[in-house]
Amino acid sequence: MHKSKLGGFIIDCQTEDLDGAADFWAGALGLTVRELPPAEAPLYRALVDSQHGLDIEVQKVEHPSRVHLDIETDDIEAEVRRLERLGAKRLHAIQTWWVMQAPTGQRFCVVRAASKTFAERATEWP
Amino acid sequence: MHKSKLGGFIIDCQTEDLDGAADFWAGALGLTVRELPPAEAPLYRALVDSQHGLDIEVQKVEHPSRVHLDIETDDIEAEVRRLERLGAKRLHAIQTWWVMQAPTGQRFCVVRAASKTFAERATEWP
Repeated sequence: MHKSKLGGFIIDCQTEDLDGAADFWAGALGLTVRELPPAEAPLYRALVDSQHGLDIEVQKVEHPSRVHLDIETDDIEAEVRRLERLGAKRLHAIQTWWVMQAPTGQRFCVVRAASKTFAERATEWP
Repeated sequence: MHKSKLGGFIIDCQTEDLDGAADFWAGALGLTVRELPPAEAPLYRALVDSQHGLDIEVQKVEHPSRVHLDIETDDIEAEVRRLERLGAKRLHAIQTWWVMQAPTGQRFCVVRAASKTFAERATEWP
């Protein structure tokens, strides 16, 4: 048995100005920017979402800009297998997470559970 | 003075099988599919998000699949102008909403406030 839920989304920005991108999206969504530790700071800024409890980040990327969803889970391998049974495909393992592709084409990530509401709100899968 | 906040997101799917797309995303995110009224049913399915209070929908589109954010507001024109001052551009007015483009390239929509938590959680802009 494992659990998962929507963790949040990452706003992938093809930009040389990560701070400018984070400032735009924070202003647009009415959120505040939070600096991340040095290991993440070159590529990521967090947007603090106390309204919905989502993990929202702005990421500097090389590919065209887009938005991708993150699914958070307490068992990455079990969740990836569950999503494969629904029709998704594994693309790349990166550090602690998997990049997958939906049958409808969008890429999304399966990441370790990090939200404060995970235990309370996640779905338990048989 | 007007208010706005993240309303949710739309999972745009380039597909002939809207029900299949909705079933995949509902299963992936642990949500249930809700049928919409006849005017919306040909192109949209709602995914009921009682976990975060977001408006999440799966949409049948002609363009390549992606995910786009919706910003909800009680004053569309004031919110569009606020977002223009942050650097976004108006693209198309559709029915009751505006499609805009962020300075980082992503398209997003400015829609009429519909979430139950709007009054309580939205940011009030001077």
